[in-house]
Amino acid sequence: MVYLTRVEKFNAAHKLWVAEWSEEKNTAVFGRCANANWHGHNYTLHVTVKGKPDPYTGFTMDARKLGAIVKSAITDHVDHRNLNLDVPFIPTGIQPTSENLVIFFWQQLTPLLPPEIALYRLKLYETDSIYAEYFGE
Amino acid sequence: MVYLTRVEKFNAAHKLWVAEWSEEKNTAVFGRCANANWHGHNYTLHVTVKGKPDPYTGFTMDARKLGAIVKSAITDHVDHRNLNLDVPFIPTGIQPTSENLVIFFWQQLTPLLPPEIALYRLKLYETDSIYAEYFGE
Amino acid sequence: MVYLTRVEKFNAAHKLWVAEWSEEKNTAVFGRCANANWHGHNYTLHVTVKGKPDPYTGFTMDARKLGAIVKSAITDHVDHRNLNLDVPFIPTGIQPTSENLVIFFWQQLTPLLPPEIALYRLKLYETDSIYAEYFGE
Amino acid sequence: MVYLTRVEKFNAAHKLWVAEWSEEKNTAVFGRCANANWHGHNYTLHVTVKGKPDPYTGFTMDARKLGAIVKSAITDHVDHRNLNLDVPFIPTGIQPTSENLVIFFWQQLTPLLPPEIALYRLKLYETDSIYAEYFGE
Amino acid sequence: MVYLTRVEKFNAAHKLWVAEWSEEKNTAVFGRCANANWHGHNYTLHVTVKGKPDPYTGFTMDARKLGAIVKSAITDHVDHRNLNLDVPFIPTGIQPTSENLVIFFWQQLTPLLPPEIALYRLKLYETDSIYAEYFGE
Amino acid sequence: MVYLTRVEKFNAAHKLWVAEWSEEKNTAVFGRCANANWHGHNYTLHVTVKGKPDPYTGFTMDARKLGAIVKSAITDHVDHRNLNLDVPFIPTGIQPTSENLVIFFWQQLTPLLPPEIALYRLKLYETDSIYAEYFGE
Repeated sequence: MVYLTRVEKFNAAHKLWVAEWSEEKNTAVFGRCANANWHGHNYTLHVTVKGKPDPYTGFTMDARKLGAIVKSAITDHVDHRNLNLDVPFIPTGIQPTSENLVIFFWQQLTPLLPPEIALYRLKLYETDSIYAEYFGE
Repeated sequence: MVYLTRVEKFNAAHKLWVAEWSEEKNTAVFGRCANANWHGHNYTLHVTVKGKPDPYTGFTMDARKLGAIVKSAITDHVDHRNLNLDVPFIPTGIQPTSENLVIFFWQQLTPLLPPEIALYRLKLYETDSIYAEYFGE
Repeated sequence: MVYLTRVEKFNAAHKLWVAEWSEEKNTAVFGRCANANWHGHNYTLHVTVKGKPDPYTGFTMDARKLGAIVKSAITDHVDHRNLNLDVPFIPTGIQPTSENLVIFFWQQLTPLLPPEIALYRLKLYETDSIYAEYFGE
Repeated sequence: MVYLTRVEKFNAAHKLWVAEWSEEKNTAVFGRCANANWHGHNYTLHVTVKGKPDPYTGFTMDARKLGAIVKSAITDHVDHRNLNLDVPFIPTGIQPTSENLVIFFWQQLTPLLPPEIALYRLKLYETDSIYAEYFGE
Repeated sequence: MVYLTRVEKFNAAHKLWVAEWSEEKNTAVFGRCANANWHGHNYTLHVTVKGKPDPYTGFTMDARKLGAIVKSAITDHVDHRNLNLDVPFIPTGIQPTSENLVIFFWQQLTPLLPPEIALYRLKLYETDSIYAEYFGE
Repeated sequence: MVYLTRVEKFNAAHKLWVAEWSEEKNTAVFGRCANANWHGHNYTLHVTVKGKPDPYTGFTMDARKLGAIVKSAITDHVDHRNLNLDVPFIPTGIQPTSENLVIFFWQQLTPLLPPEIALYRLKLYETDSIYAEYFGE
């Protein structure tokens, strides 16, 4: 088994805000991330798949095809978008934290991968100093 | 003369949109950057000052003091903010492109520097692939 | 389970030197790392915790709280310090290699984490080319 | 157990081309990677070993020794070389993809490590956006 | 005047070899860079233009247009190519060093820029440790 | 004229401390940088020379030769050393700040460069967030 990772980037706006909470509680919990008029990030997503390299091509999976799938499943929907408002697969009222994003991205991506390829890990950098990883369970 | 650079980061939302233009024209000119609900970036700002190192301290300028000035003059106002709506020193209707931001940041910063220190260059990364530089004229 | 990583940095001096060994043996084993007057590094520490994202906040753990704990448990004690002489939780005579540091950092950090959060991995970069990882056993 | 990683770099030429296939098929499958006159990359290899730090030295393994072994086993043979033509341990007709390279590198490296040290992971960056990982099985 | 930089990447093979020289002299001068079967690099090109930001768009120049021009003028011709053999605008027998590449790239790029925009600087990274810069004279 | 840059790294200990000042004043001015038992950094030095590429080699200057000169003139003397105590060309009592280091490095380097090559710029990163540049005057 050899693991192949493809890195894709997107730029998006978001805020963290629980509708059931007061402004005071939102600010106490989320700090500047609760700014009413949003803020944003350059996100970097590492998509890792796992499989046996093909004896002819030497590919676990064609990295260009993997890139195209990630684009159509994820980055086309989130790049230059508002993660709270604009993305059909992020449910309203769920915080678009990196931890939740990797779970939603996993659900988007797995149905589109070839059957012989397992999605192994998603790693999402929100900044250089904060990132989330998900292994599907 | 020795040049000293301090790097600071901030995360902000923005969009590019000319109010006098139709939606069609805005989209034609700005593409995804015109998304109505905003998008955002992790910005990285390099602030370079120029001076003669002090014979006692060896400092062109104390980098911690420079960091504190950049924070109070710039990043406190733009970090986790909306660059179109939330920042007093960015005039309404002016596009918050990196090119315009470095000009506004220059105006904010110069009055706060010690008289013996010249601001030499501002360099603002909007993404890893796009950055603007300004030398004050 | 979603893994959340917070990255923190510190700058420290150290040397590698076994007191029971001759200067010749120390130099033969440690090379330039045995320099009597110390050398130093910009260390980068990746702290990864593991947990279930909170249904309200979407946080495995508040990254700012994690940062504050790492600061009080680790970086406040090692930043701008001498790792052989200045750090109470690094025993005298134990080499402050990256491999040993991640073990000591683990011991410092685990008692301070909330009970529902497991420390998963510490990864310490000593340079861009050398890093150590520890998973607690 | 503490994991120690040493990072080494090399620059090499290669192409992806299955001799049994027509030019049309090679181009359809490999795209620009099938360019007849080769292309090339700056590769970055992360070699991770696993062991118990020595009580005297604090080393899982001396990182300089690990670097020397990686150099003699791998990078001396691939740096400034053509991966399809110049490397004895890459069989003719096998595609020098990152996925296959990490398998060949694993075979080169394991016989040269000290018996108490286990090779844990090879991670090979072909570009900033594509990398392969191998754990030996 | 505000300077705008767009970063583009390409992967290419090359070798350094003076046809009039013996193999011995080529190897003595160029070392491993003279390897007969080529080697290669991931090149990173920073293209900096200079101009006055447009009062409506806030752009020195639309970074997407600049990227498209760099692609059609340069990277389409050198990406996944052999710099000694495959590139019409690199004369046969001229060494494809980074120093020469930035001069050829400059000649390719300047005729395609809008008249109000001046090309200010090309900066080409051959590796993380070696780069060339050219200002047009 | 084409500018060529070679990047070299070194790891060193230092502290900032003016002997004529009290401990209180040193701590007030230098903060944690005055720690009695030193601290340290991974320094990254960018050495930029300027010249006309040779018509045969295409080199402004052979980057390997430049690297060798930087090593013998600078990094051999400062790598794994204490910048306050161990380096002959840093005068006692002068603070080893990045600003002063680039001046001393300039003096070391210029006599060793070939006559047709001008040293253009030294850029020294002390951390990812602080760097000094010197152009020789």
